Amino acid sequence: MTKIIDGKAIANEIKQEIKKDVAKLEQEYGKKPTLAVILVGNDGASEVYVRMKKKTSEELGINSLQITLDESTTQSELLKLIHELNSDTNVNGILVQLPLPSHIDENIIINAIDPIKDVDGFHPINLGKLVIGSDDSFVSCTPYGCQELIVRNVPDLKGKHLVIVGRSNIVGKPLANIMLQKNERANCIVTICHTATSDIGYYTRQADILVVAVGKANMITKNMVKPGAVVIDVGINRIDDLHNPGKTKLVGDVKFDEVSEIASAITPVPGGVGPMTIVMLMKNTVKAFRLQNKI
Amino acid sequence: MTKIIDGKAIANEIKQEIKKDVAKLEQEYGKKPTLAVILVGNDGASEVYVRMKKKTSEELGINSLQITLDESTTQSELLKLIHELNSDTNVNGILVQLPLPSHIDENIIINAIDPIKDVDGFHPINLGKLVIGSDDSFVSCTPYGCQELIVRNVPDLKGKHLVIVGRSNIVGKPLANIMLQKNERANCIVTICHTATSDIGYYTRQADILVVAVGKANMITKNMVKPGAVVIDVGINRIDDLHNPGKTKLVGDVKFDEVSEIASAITPVPGGVGPMTIVMLMKNTVKAFRLQNKI
Repeated sequence: MTKIIDGKAIANEIKQEIKKDVAKLEQEYGKKPTLAVILVGNDGASEVYVRMKKKTSEELGINSLQITLDESTTQSELLKLIHELNSDTNVNGILVQLPLPSHIDENIIINAIDPIKDVDGFHPINLGKLVIGSDDSFVSCTPYGCQELIVRNVPDLKGKHLVIVGRSNIVGKPLANIMLQKNERANCIVTICHTATSDIGYYTRQADILVVAVGKANMITKNMVKPGAVVIDVGINRIDDLHNPGKTKLVGDVKFDEVSEIASAITPVPGGVGPMTIVMLMKNTVKAFRLQNKI
Repeated sequence: MTKIIDGKAIANEIKQEIKKDVAKLEQEYGKKPTLAVILVGNDGASEVYVRMKKKTSEELGINSLQITLDESTTQSELLKLIHELNSDTNVNGILVQLPLPSHIDENIIINAIDPIKDVDGFHPINLGKLVIGSDDSFVSCTPYGCQELIVRNVPDLKGKHLVIVGRSNIVGKPLANIMLQKNERANCIVTICHTATSDIGYYTRQADILVVAVGKANMITKNMVKPGAVVIDVGINRIDDLHNPGKTKLVGDVKFDEVSEIASAITPVPGGVGPMTIVMLMKNTVKAFRLQNKI
């Protein structure tokens, strides 16, 4: 019987844990974590994401500082704001909603965030610490959420073969580095394959745990998956809904209907990895609060 | 016919390239790269390494600044020296010879080196940039040397399956991150296996390119290697020489005699990866000079 991994339910469990944690921190230290979220311009999707982050923060008792800047904001104005937030001891996490308008260099902005407040985990120093396995760093939210789903669905990770399809800087590469570390939440043999792979199925069929983060609708078919594998689908693709002419629907990178017949556990899209991302951001914000207050 | 990869000859080729490069830089800009090497205490092996670095620097026209400190040097004295070297515009590369005496925290020392002078590539920010594929960073010398040997012995790397045995912070992990990048000197499907792997041979037999960095004498046997594979042996192990009672000899992690029967190319130990390491350090020093002088 295939288990459908309910990302929303798991995210809710973790939310409850965080909520308790925040309440306890407030009681003991008289203050709560604060997350600053910066939105430049008025991209529709970004506005939705920022609103969700604010809502989740408030739900968990985390202070939310939302800063909305005009599309025309210059790079140096944004840098100035980041420097102010870096030195504001009341702000624990700083997140700049991406993408930024094209006249602003995203790398320069990300590198300007104090690494100890970089709750998105995109600063190179946090990525580097993740490679070394250093604990005082932030793991970016999507791979962190994938790890959480894997840990909760694979009892003994040691020596399991994890195959990742896709080598993006925000999912595939950090996840590979997380999962090969020598600790109980990792310790996998990791293979990462990508666009240069002529026969993806050769690798994916070996996976005890398969993570797909490519952005190509229904790319992974049943014959590419080992029976009994745990499948984590990071892709979110909007395609035409053949059953409802003129309408669209969201699907993952994995052909859910057929792969769910042979996987032991699989995430649906939507409702799998998606709900985890925002919750891991909250977890990072609490961690930032702890690190900065040396708790 | 198996090719024995002559690391010494390749290192010499690269040395000639660097020597020309340094001479040209001096002619055009009136100055040469400078490498500062710090040795704390008088560990015998470290003294040899530092002397080799000095000798190679001078051979290539690179200024060598060797600083030898007493075993009793405190961490804060060492930090003070590093800060001075960081702000000295005449110094382009800073290398602290490891291991340090036990009363000094290596991580604190490495993190204190200005990343733009970190020619050993151990600073987390350089590791993080390596994950992202950012070009303004330093790759640590041993994996960089492995990459160079691979590039020179595998005509078309795209889509080749590289299997790495060993997940150390100084070889396995950085090499995995280098070789999965999307560029002509990489673009491999990468698998990394390690102590938690129950059947190492299952993975190594799949390798088009096999890199072993474990530190376990003769661990990889013929039946663990695919015929025609390119084998890079990073291990250096001293064992008893059975043919010369009472004497020892150096061997790699790969059982050279038998694996060389089926590999298409293989590095010997010594004389394979070893000679490359120091030459890549020199390459990094020249790169540091270029980055700092915006050339």
